[in-house]
Amino acid sequence: MVSKSQIKLITSLSQKKYRQQHGLFVVEGIKGIQEFLDSHYTLHSLYALKGYFEAQNAIEIAEAALKKISFLKTPQKALAVFEIPKLSSEKEAGFQLVLDDVRDPGNLGTLIRLCDWYGIKTLVCSQQTVDCFNPKVVQATMGSLTRVKVHYTNLDTYLSGQTLPVYGAFMDGENVYRASMLEDAILVLGNEANGISSAVSEKIQHKICIPQFGTSTTESLNVAIAGAILVSEFKRG
Amino acid sequence: MVSKSQIKLITSLSQKKYRQQHGLFVVEGIKGIQEFLDSHYTLHSLYALKGYFEAQNAIEIAEAALKKISFLKTPQKALAVFEIPKLSSEKEAGFQLVLDDVRDPGNLGTLIRLCDWYGIKTLVCSQQTVDCFNPKVVQATMGSLTRVKVHYTNLDTYLSGQTLPVYGAFMDGENVYRASMLEDAILVLGNEANGISSAVSEKIQHKICIPQFGTSTTESLNVAIAGAILVSEFKRG
Repeated sequence: MVSKSQIKLITSLSQKKYRQQHGLFVVEGIKGIQEFLDSHYTLHSLYALKGYFEAQNAIEIAEAALKKISFLKTPQKALAVFEIPKLSSEKEAGFQLVLDDVRDPGNLGTLIRLCDWYGIKTLVCSQQTVDCFNPKVVQATMGSLTRVKVHYTNLDTYLSGQTLPVYGAFMDGENVYRASMLEDAILVLGNEANGISSAVSEKIQHKICIPQFGTSTTESLNVAIAGAILVSEFKRG
Repeated sequence: MVSKSQIKLITSLSQKKYRQQHGLFVVEGIKGIQEFLDSHYTLHSLYALKGYFEAQNAIEIAEAALKKISFLKTPQKALAVFEIPKLSSEKEAGFQLVLDDVRDPGNLGTLIRLCDWYGIKTLVCSQQTVDCFNPKVVQATMGSLTRVKVHYTNLDTYLSGQTLPVYGAFMDGENVYRASMLEDAILVLGNEANGISSAVSEKIQHKICIPQFGTSTTESLNVAIAGAILVSEFKRG
């Protein structure tokens, strides 16, 4: 059974302000929930159809009730609420990825998954970047959020305090395949429509780009695709 | 004004069998439609709000009517129907990308956009790969479909007739950063869940992979992300 107040709490977690107020976020689906259960995250509550997560004392609910609390078109047998962890502010060594106002949940989710693949432990985001505990982001990360820490901060201040070389993706940057790159560096990616903001641009020492092999009318690459190609260039050694 | 039979025709084009039967597909949004108008594609009909595409003799419709024929949650001021072009079967030289049962429209759209960026003129797909004239694919390509030809064929037969070396993305392939790669080659990417089918695997001479830098519990990379990193490795020279 799910009470009215539980339904109200869970559905409110689609909005950032309520996630922040309650310090909670939602994970859906057996595989995703299992990854969070196996991680350092703390479970708040777990709702599942009969036969799922019984060992975890899940609250058994019917499909109709799951439909009420789910954010998915097709609910996924179980829904869990976890606590948003408090992040320590210790600095990480090595390569860092920084996002300046990435707004699309799918793009952020894909970039978190990319960080996880390439062993990048921390992702630093501007305050305007989409919240990593947004249900669509959590879904797109496929569990990678349990292994990548996402920090939200003022990028201007953050980049000013760094000693590593700062690279940024620009349409008119140097050809990344010809540029000399250090493995320990910071790479900044910008907003889907506007790229890197002018305040953040001032902190960037090396402007790089992925050269265009096709005709000049081609749209720019999607930020997650460009990010993948650029991270690969830093990591390939 | 849009007649009932026009509404019926347009909405039927969300399904592959009706697109094939009528030889027509839908493009939405001012920018996308303009790209198709400027290309080799032939316009069938064009519906727009007052003030848009008047020079093209667009059929003027009201917002309510546009909502009826649109496949988007938020209709985009204009909707056009174009003819599906007949593809010549002439062989293309140089690097080729081949998709074995990619099913997600967003992934196919992103890969078409990637081909366009890297000047890859032809994308070869298995018959089970999602249709490139699916409205979600057209939307995701951002106009790149006007510059990249997508062929659907039996990959088994197709690959048997090729003289270029055939590479394929496998979880247990050789580290792509260490492999020796030719710029003129064929790269095969597999299905989101199952990878490359066993029939197609037999035609592949070089199995490659993107090495994992993170922990071993990480999910595989999304096929569009993996495709971008691998195409970049072939093209970087």
